[in-house]
Amino acid sequence: MPVSDWYTCDLTARYAETDRMGVIYHANYLTWFEIGRTEMIRELGYPYRKIEEQGLLLPVVDLDMQFIKPAYYDDRIRISTRITDFTNIRLNFEVRIERLDEETNQAADLLVTGRTRHVWLNNRWKPARIDREAPELYALIKRACHLEE
Amino acid sequence: MPVSDWYTCDLTARYAETDRMGVIYHANYLTWFEIGRTEMIRELGYPYRKIEEQGLLLPVVDLDMQFIKPAYYDDRIRISTRITDFTNIRLNFEVRIERLDEETNQAADLLVTGRTRHVWLNNRWKPARIDREAPELYALIKRACHLEE
Amino acid sequence: MPVSDWYTCDLTARYAETDRMGVIYHANYLTWFEIGRTEMIRELGYPYRKIEEQGLLLPVVDLDMQFIKPAYYDDRIRISTRITDFTNIRLNFEVRIERLDEETNQAADLLVTGRTRHVWLNNRWKPARIDREAPELYALIKRACHLEE
Amino acid sequence: MPVSDWYTCDLTARYAETDRMGVIYHANYLTWFEIGRTEMIRELGYPYRKIEEQGLLLPVVDLDMQFIKPAYYDDRIRISTRITDFTNIRLNFEVRIERLDEETNQAADLLVTGRTRHVWLNNRWKPARIDREAPELYALIKRACHLEE
Repeated sequence: MPVSDWYTCDLTARYAETDRMGVIYHANYLTWFEIGRTEMIRELGYPYRKIEEQGLLLPVVDLDMQFIKPAYYDDRIRISTRITDFTNIRLNFEVRIERLDEETNQAADLLVTGRTRHVWLNNRWKPARIDREAPELYALIKRACHLEE
Repeated sequence: MPVSDWYTCDLTARYAETDRMGVIYHANYLTWFEIGRTEMIRELGYPYRKIEEQGLLLPVVDLDMQFIKPAYYDDRIRISTRITDFTNIRLNFEVRIERLDEETNQAADLLVTGRTRHVWLNNRWKPARIDREAPELYALIKRACHLEE
Repeated sequence: MPVSDWYTCDLTARYAETDRMGVIYHANYLTWFEIGRTEMIRELGYPYRKIEEQGLLLPVVDLDMQFIKPAYYDDRIRISTRITDFTNIRLNFEVRIERLDEETNQAADLLVTGRTRHVWLNNRWKPARIDREAPELYALIKRACHLEE
Repeated sequence: MPVSDWYTCDLTARYAETDRMGVIYHANYLTWFEIGRTEMIRELGYPYRKIEEQGLLLPVVDLDMQFIKPAYYDDRIRISTRITDFTNIRLNFEVRIERLDEETNQAADLLVTGRTRHVWLNNRWKPARIDREAPELYALIKRACHLEE
């Protein structure tokens, strides 16, 4: 199964993302998962906005999440994302959310893990073959997973 | 200045809408304002979804809000909305958010007040004359404000 | 494994919950899942607010979701929730999100399914034995799952 | 009236922040306003988290917003914030949201302006005199507004 390297991006937990338990509300981690995917795809050289401008969508069809420790307001957060499988019609991601140590800026606590599974659709919400409709993007995904073209 | 009667709808404050201060996060009242507008327009007989299907948009151009008391998780909330002015290109709303008493279901505390000002746009984001593009809707707004046609 | 009946509650999809794909943003279904749990527990006779006032929390530790069809703005939505397992320290829910037919108000399309797994914590975030700390609530859960006390 | 310099911070508009009009949902600008305030206070040398740890809250009591142009998904955004008035019990901010040009990283379009007015409260939600309860913070605010101590 093709697997890419991990791609990381950092953010600060927002006040608006907290709930009255005093922690980040659990649904907001899905937004962070999406930021991780988006920034990974941007780093591959193909911003997600450009993908949608081409008439392609990548909705989530299935996901799972494990909550290990809570994140708090103003925590520095690292999102690590990698591709764990793909074909010309599907794309899967694995995500890890960690809290950074304020002194060292190193990942100090694993907070949430998860996996999201996606399909490529055109803008009439019909399955799309990415190798045909966006071959340049498909080549980038293959290369990210260390596959020869 | 034409003014309509007040239209009301009720909801329950969601856990997801709280923040770590233990109250409803202030930006969420804007979502409640929108629910008030939407339900008022629905009661006039013209669901907002139908308005957008006709190629019209009604974005906010200006608003103000006053926060009097906080709402808490699971509070029963009453949203009261009225039109406070309109022309064939503009539409203004006034909104009041109140907490309902659990026993009597009557408004017990005034929490937030506000006003939102909107313009009618077509789906190319250009100003639209609602009396021409949706005369039936325009007639409903006039009638709501007790104006003769 | 103890299983309860299904409990249902209905809501209308909000404008604020949509995204630029024109559908409900996927993270918002987790908020709907929570509304389903909350309303089920309320119907059992023990509002979740009262649970937290007693110093107990019920965070999610693990979840999965399957996205079958998208929900759209202003759709009437039915959330069906049941308990699928529990002990004195854990509680699991299964959820189904369906679109209601506007004419008949019957469930017409299955949109999202999911499962959330929770643990009982006290307000120092330590595991709590619900049979000791809230025996009345524990009895309600057992009764909901058709277990003799 | 004491006025500080402008403090700026940048962010990228999130997919989760869009709505089905294809633009950033208007309530989300309030979250950006808060990020602007938070980052300004952090730069003054007193993170907002530390303020709350001291038992002080700074809720919004009143605000207004003007929407000039919409922000879109993935836009690079600059938030500029300044203090426009304060006493030992109140604090007012003015905010400007601009879109950055992708080439030059300079502010290219003014999108939203607004003002938020706040009061200092202690954690029983009673008015607090910041010059007594957090004199170091009060001194930082005065200095930011170019006032002698």
